[in-house]
Amino acid sequence: MDRNLPIGIFDSGVGGLTVYRALHERLPNERFVYLGDTARVPYGTKSLATVERYAVENAKFLESHGIKLLVVACNTASALALPAIRAAVAIDVVGVIGPGARAAAAQVKNDQRVGVIATEATVQSGAYARAIATVNSAVEVVERACPLFVSLAEEGWADSQVAHAVATEYLKDLTTESISVLVLGCTHYPILRRTIAAIIGPDVSLIDSGEATAIEVAARLEKLGLSHDEDIRRQTDRRLGDDLDHFYVTDAAQRFAKVAERFLGTAPSILEAVEVWGHDELRSD
Amino acid sequence: MDRNLPIGIFDSGVGGLTVYRALHERLPNERFVYLGDTARVPYGTKSLATVERYAVENAKFLESHGIKLLVVACNTASALALPAIRAAVAIDVVGVIGPGARAAAAQVKNDQRVGVIATEATVQSGAYARAIATVNSAVEVVERACPLFVSLAEEGWADSQVAHAVATEYLKDLTTESISVLVLGCTHYPILRRTIAAIIGPDVSLIDSGEATAIEVAARLEKLGLSHDEDIRRQTDRRLGDDLDHFYVTDAAQRFAKVAERFLGTAPSILEAVEVWGHDELRSD
Repeated sequence: MDRNLPIGIFDSGVGGLTVYRALHERLPNERFVYLGDTARVPYGTKSLATVERYAVENAKFLESHGIKLLVVACNTASALALPAIRAAVAIDVVGVIGPGARAAAAQVKNDQRVGVIATEATVQSGAYARAIATVNSAVEVVERACPLFVSLAEEGWADSQVAHAVATEYLKDLTTESISVLVLGCTHYPILRRTIAAIIGPDVSLIDSGEATAIEVAARLEKLGLSHDEDIRRQTDRRLGDDLDHFYVTDAAQRFAKVAERFLGTAPSILEAVEVWGHDELRSD
Repeated sequence: MDRNLPIGIFDSGVGGLTVYRALHERLPNERFVYLGDTARVPYGTKSLATVERYAVENAKFLESHGIKLLVVACNTASALALPAIRAAVAIDVVGVIGPGARAAAAQVKNDQRVGVIATEATVQSGAYARAIATVNSAVEVVERACPLFVSLAEEGWADSQVAHAVATEYLKDLTTESISVLVLGCTHYPILRRTIAAIIGPDVSLIDSGEATAIEVAARLEKLGLSHDEDIRRQTDRRLGDDLDHFYVTDAAQRFAKVAERFLGTAPSILEAVEVWGHDELRSD
């Protein structure tokens, strides 16, 4: 394996940019290839079979592009499709559920509860609860789907009064369940971090699964001897979305660029529309 | 054409049930076949080429099922893909934009403005403004995308404080534009009708494009001599979602049934998961 290959990241859409940002901050010496499956977003309301099929197609597309490791940024795909993805590609695959669950389990005491907020499909899968149980089976996990958070983040309303009202409604069950750790189990939710923190209160630690994943990816590259050996950081003025990273979407590149600017503070330099399901025609706005 | 064939309806997902409800109320003597493309919902953030492809696949699926007329319930598909659909199928095709625009134009005076709320893709297409201009080019049209309304409707939060806060934010531009008619240009929005009416005020008439479409479909069937000739109404206790109507989804039938119950007051009796894009495997929850 060529250690100078980029790291692949796929997500159902634009939300995975929070995971890209976390990886980019933690690993400024790596290059990234990001695929957002915007033609088929969202995954969070879809079935297991469908999410598996879409995820495998995305993984194969990135593998064929030449990557040294694949990060499944989408929580729903990580919850439902990791076994199918690992069976389909030869490279190392890292999901966001395991790292997020391990970070939560490390922070919680035996008599405390962990809260998880995520998409409907991730909550229904119970993947976070199972992953936390493998670390500490004594920890109770309370889960809640918060579908409106995605639209709030994409609208640029993360810190609005409306976002506060929505968060108050979604988190009221969790506040009465007296949790001490809350996992942000959907890539969009870190965008609402300030609002969520204000509602859930200062006694609850927030875990960003994307950040937890970046820490584990850094450790894994180190261990496998796959860290990039050129010093990109010294050679270039490394920035989010610069031309060392390549972004693909399966549809509506203009909209992706607009929301990316909201999420990253900048639109990607290199953004291309592709098909990942076996056709070869291109698609654009 | 067999006048006793059902009417086909397709939508990107569950929202089109408001159009089904309007058709069912207006035409209780007809049978309906409904397709919700839940594997690929939503269309409102996707590109022209993608919406066209999905819409044509849905239309062909329903045509092959045997229908006498096709209603494109999805505003986005009606705005972007009617020419492509009409080129692809032999049956009569009715979209929701034309009827909604004509109903709005009929209610507005020359010196008044029409407001249109819809998805991002429908607003960007300018389809409502163009359709209103063909009836009365003197009427000014003000459009606004309201993406959060979809999640609010599906969450069952249509009449909540949060919905009021969201509607206040979205509609504030329209209230200062002093419109006299507001078109609900997305199938989900009629679910929030009470909230929208409360915010926009009693001086603005609300046009439900689904209801306007049902009126035009009834007239067209009459004119074409295609009204059902058996008296279903007398023979059965006709209800929304009863076994005279057949519902197909392309994914996640359980979730569809749950939201359908919220939208119609009942889950469909006959609900089946299918693929519409040339594969023959079935898919379920």
